[in-house]
Amino acid sequence: MAGYSPMLETLIEKFRSLPGIGGKTAVRLAFFMLNSSEEYVKEFADCLIETKNKTRTCKICQSLSDAEICAVCSDAERDRGLLCVVENARDIATFEKVKEYNGVYHVLHGVMSPMDGIGPDDIRIKELLARINGVNLSETPDGEAIAGIKVREVILATGSNVEGEATAMYISQLVKPFGVAASRLAYGLPVGGELEYADSVTLFKALEGRREM
Amino acid sequence: MAGYSPMLETLIEKFRSLPGIGGKTAVRLAFFMLNSSEEYVKEFADCLIETKNKTRTCKICQSLSDAEICAVCSDAERDRGLLCVVENARDIATFEKVKEYNGVYHVLHGVMSPMDGIGPDDIRIKELLARINGVNLSETPDGEAIAGIKVREVILATGSNVEGEATAMYISQLVKPFGVAASRLAYGLPVGGELEYADSVTLFKALEGRREM
Repeated sequence: MAGYSPMLETLIEKFRSLPGIGGKTAVRLAFFMLNSSEEYVKEFADCLIETKNKTRTCKICQSLSDAEICAVCSDAERDRGLLCVVENARDIATFEKVKEYNGVYHVLHGVMSPMDGIGPDDIRIKELLARINGVNLSETPDGEAIAGIKVREVILATGSNVEGEATAMYISQLVKPFGVAASRLAYGLPVGGELEYADSVTLFKALEGRREM
Repeated sequence: MAGYSPMLETLIEKFRSLPGIGGKTAVRLAFFMLNSSEEYVKEFADCLIETKNKTRTCKICQSLSDAEICAVCSDAERDRGLLCVVENARDIATFEKVKEYNGVYHVLHGVMSPMDGIGPDDIRIKELLARINGVNLSETPDGEAIAGIKVREVILATGSNVEGEATAMYISQLVKPFGVAASRLAYGLPVGGELEYADSVTLFKALEGRREM
């Protein structure tokens, strides 16, 4: 775009390279930065670099954390016998909004997708099995051993697409021999949704999963 | 939001503080950064700081530039007798997309707004007058004097709201004694727009500004 200095042009392009940010938003964000104080911009940039450099995966659940063991895994109040298996670290925040869930998590960092060449070894399934076997497990920062706690149930919360379903199926077959129950999230009508807006696949799942009253 | 590490939480909050970026977009952007390479993130952060620190206003037109004199003002091919007065530096890019405009610009950095306590001295009107008077004008990087060129016409391109109109009126009264013509952008129907979608104020302006065929 003409009319901006080359340096400003570069910053606009940088913003534009972010997902979901178009040309006009990129210009707005770049100008917002120019109009902000030098401290604000420095803080923003520092935060970006620091978070990127210091964030790693939790040794137990593979979620993102700035400590060796994440906050959920360190929490002694959590039910460590109940494991919710999710595709990525963002899903954890969604579950955490539901205050009722008191178990722990396991992040796969993807799903199996033969079409894209992603097999069971490319996602963190072996870490899940190690966890179930009770090997290779660290201690919490306060020295409490987590290894001793037997996993009772694995809730498979991967996506409802083909890859998510296949991954859930695969994991359920793997964990059952260890005497671990495997469950899948229920599919059905969203609460508060009108019947007339439900798509037929969801309605089929709701029929299939109907419960006696 | 629960479920993220405190550091990641801070980064998400930083993104959320940007204009037009909501909670979900902030999460998406933060995770995009975490999934990008360390070089990418460092480059992004450096670009932010460098652009913020090195961008200043052009000594002549007050637009944003990384040099003392901006690219438009340094361009000897430009008609320096024709000045387009805009509210902010972003407007220049809009004009530059119209390839036909070959004049130069003057950025006010705001409009007069008595309600917000912004008077004529708070925006760059005196710099505009100095420019018209031919005083205080620098030379282009290649030593060519710009001061000698008489301003012939000022196009007032401030917004069509009350503040923009008042500022345009005020400036036109100021520059006329110097023998400088003042004009205002035409208001009317947008090209390609349907008559039935025109609002009545625009239609009134289009009627008022009708031209003989």
